[in-house]
Amino acid sequence: MENHSDRADRIWADIQRIRAEAPVIHNITNYVVMNTTANALLAIGASPVMAHAEEEVGEMTAIARSLVINIGTLSAPWIAAMFKAGEAARRNARPIVLDPVGAGATTFRTATARKLLAELSPAIVRGNASEIRALVYDERSTRGVDSAHQSEDAAQAADRLFTRYGCVVVTSGAVDLISSGGLTARVFNGHPMMPKVTGMGCTASALTGAFAAVNPSARDAAVNAMAVMGIAGELAADHARGPGTFLDQFLDALYLLNESDIRERVKVRES
Amino acid sequence: MENHSDRADRIWADIQRIRAEAPVIHNITNYVVMNTTANALLAIGASPVMAHAEEEVGEMTAIARSLVINIGTLSAPWIAAMFKAGEAARRNARPIVLDPVGAGATTFRTATARKLLAELSPAIVRGNASEIRALVYDERSTRGVDSAHQSEDAAQAADRLFTRYGCVVVTSGAVDLISSGGLTARVFNGHPMMPKVTGMGCTASALTGAFAAVNPSARDAAVNAMAVMGIAGELAADHARGPGTFLDQFLDALYLLNESDIRERVKVRES
Amino acid sequence: MENHSDRADRIWADIQRIRAEAPVIHNITNYVVMNTTANALLAIGASPVMAHAEEEVGEMTAIARSLVINIGTLSAPWIAAMFKAGEAARRNARPIVLDPVGAGATTFRTATARKLLAELSPAIVRGNASEIRALVYDERSTRGVDSAHQSEDAAQAADRLFTRYGCVVVTSGAVDLISSGGLTARVFNGHPMMPKVTGMGCTASALTGAFAAVNPSARDAAVNAMAVMGIAGELAADHARGPGTFLDQFLDALYLLNESDIRERVKVRES
Repeated sequence: MENHSDRADRIWADIQRIRAEAPVIHNITNYVVMNTTANALLAIGASPVMAHAEEEVGEMTAIARSLVINIGTLSAPWIAAMFKAGEAARRNARPIVLDPVGAGATTFRTATARKLLAELSPAIVRGNASEIRALVYDERSTRGVDSAHQSEDAAQAADRLFTRYGCVVVTSGAVDLISSGGLTARVFNGHPMMPKVTGMGCTASALTGAFAAVNPSARDAAVNAMAVMGIAGELAADHARGPGTFLDQFLDALYLLNESDIRERVKVRES
Repeated sequence: MENHSDRADRIWADIQRIRAEAPVIHNITNYVVMNTTANALLAIGASPVMAHAEEEVGEMTAIARSLVINIGTLSAPWIAAMFKAGEAARRNARPIVLDPVGAGATTFRTATARKLLAELSPAIVRGNASEIRALVYDERSTRGVDSAHQSEDAAQAADRLFTRYGCVVVTSGAVDLISSGGLTARVFNGHPMMPKVTGMGCTASALTGAFAAVNPSARDAAVNAMAVMGIAGELAADHARGPGTFLDQFLDALYLLNESDIRERVKVRES
Repeated sequence: MENHSDRADRIWADIQRIRAEAPVIHNITNYVVMNTTANALLAIGASPVMAHAEEEVGEMTAIARSLVINIGTLSAPWIAAMFKAGEAARRNARPIVLDPVGAGATTFRTATARKLLAELSPAIVRGNASEIRALVYDERSTRGVDSAHQSEDAAQAADRLFTRYGCVVVTSGAVDLISSGGLTARVFNGHPMMPKVTGMGCTASALTGAFAAVNPSARDAAVNAMAVMGIAGELAADHARGPGTFLDQFLDALYLLNESDIRERVKVRES
């Protein structure tokens, strides 16, 4: 394990900045999770905005501190908006988080995710192992938006994406991998109920956008965000009977999160 | 009442298969309920996927075990995608569940629902009594997406749909009717809080898709799905104060559902 | 304070009418909040319908008792539908509630909100202070869809909108202002947790649509709706740990709301 006290300090510093600054986070995300990710961003202290019209995404990204692009329910007009917002983010030096939901499930998603990755230079890509693999290998996923792999199975693909595109790669799973070249951090926080709630992966991407808005190190922002996801999941599980009550408790946990929660629970290993 | 022990066996067998196989269910559904239906499918043990772009629906349906089409928030591009996905479902012999939300409220919805029904040969159609009637009779509904009729009022219309299109017809209400020609099953499970929560009908259709994915008898899948909806509703009501807390408890109930819950509560009559 | 007993009577009369008549409320609203606003309308006793296709909005508005237009996730086809529905509302003498979400954040939103206001003559406009100001002043909001102002900061802008367009203007905030020319009512009910939940403003607009459906006085409907929002928020806070549990408790409170809750809590001042 890395020095947990140091990691807890860094997580707590980011949370305090998010709560103090309430950074505007521009999300172009899927219909299924918009409500959940907006609520998670509010709960952690950020100010979410959702906008997808080509006519306005450029201006919206310009007033935001980061841009989260999620391809969960894709269509041609939204893709155009993603590229337009992405260009505005680059022009304004805003970090982009890319969530390639369902890459590998259809040709359309795989091709779109790869194109967004290649042209927009996201600071961070976050997906499950099947999605991360699909960005590199020509293999079809038969599990839809769920992963057919463990996060470790995507470790090589993640390293390759870092080498090729310079992006930090988060592979979510029972253990989360944060890959940035030779360095890999592993976050062991989390709870088995999380994959039984729709949009927890998308929420991880959205929160990563909030951390990237206040932390200039993409790697550090990604590790901190994933640790907070996992810790909030553990806290939620203490109060939940099943996935329905879990989500509300998860949002409450994000909102109520304090320094000692983090200090007591954080489990990150760097190598 | 039919032999409840036998019905409970069949419901429990389906649930065990869903939990073991986690079938991918492709949903083209409305914006209002996407999150709820995705969570309900996860809670029962299935793997939901939402996709509506013409460019990908064919491939997505091909990796799914069933297709759920719901016209709750309709537009021209989505209709095109519904037909394309429907053709892929037929080509791949996947059962289709059609939910004609708001049929009868506008000409556009009525015409679209009828065309989907005629061209895609869904295995199961599920709606409220006003919607099922609107598929057969030229009458206008003035209650929007709510029903102005009891489920029994649609019994003849349901029989006619079965005769004409060969689809099992589920008419939801205080009592649910599952019509398949001369045979009609009635499910008496449920709770009056359910219509106070948006998307419970749509959730019934989504769950029906999960049962149809593992049970080759469309009739049996529909009866089992409606019984599970009703039983989960009853269990949820024990823990809920109102419609807000009800939904979370409903999702928890789907997730926690065990054999004795079903055996003690199932109330189905066949005739 | 105004005569609270009289105000409580009027609020309670509206709620009883909504519960007895279950008015259909047509919402053209944003993706983020559709589920929440539908649930809030059901919880208060109304019958929500969401429809946005140009092909059907005219017919849908015609069967509805009021129309709520919310520009939270705007695009060109939805704008066309908003105007079409708005014309149907005018033709059928249905009150329109306009929610200019994010006006001031982008040129596209500001221009669209102003055009809807000018051409559709809404009975009521409801927004936060930055949004109301953006309808009058050429100033850019840098907080996305959150307000950079207190509600009192929009008092003059609200008066000007009333003079120019004849619409009652609700400016939401810690204190809600309901402006109708020289008259301003202030609603002091509410809870600080409310802005931490996404879509509470949009929900206020939706509920205003329900009150406007049963109360011919737009001003009275707006005051009553905002008081009910605030009271339900206070009741919810008694049972919530954070913003996740808050929303469910809020929906339960709307559903369970009784005359004595209103009588004990209502805090409105007219001037």
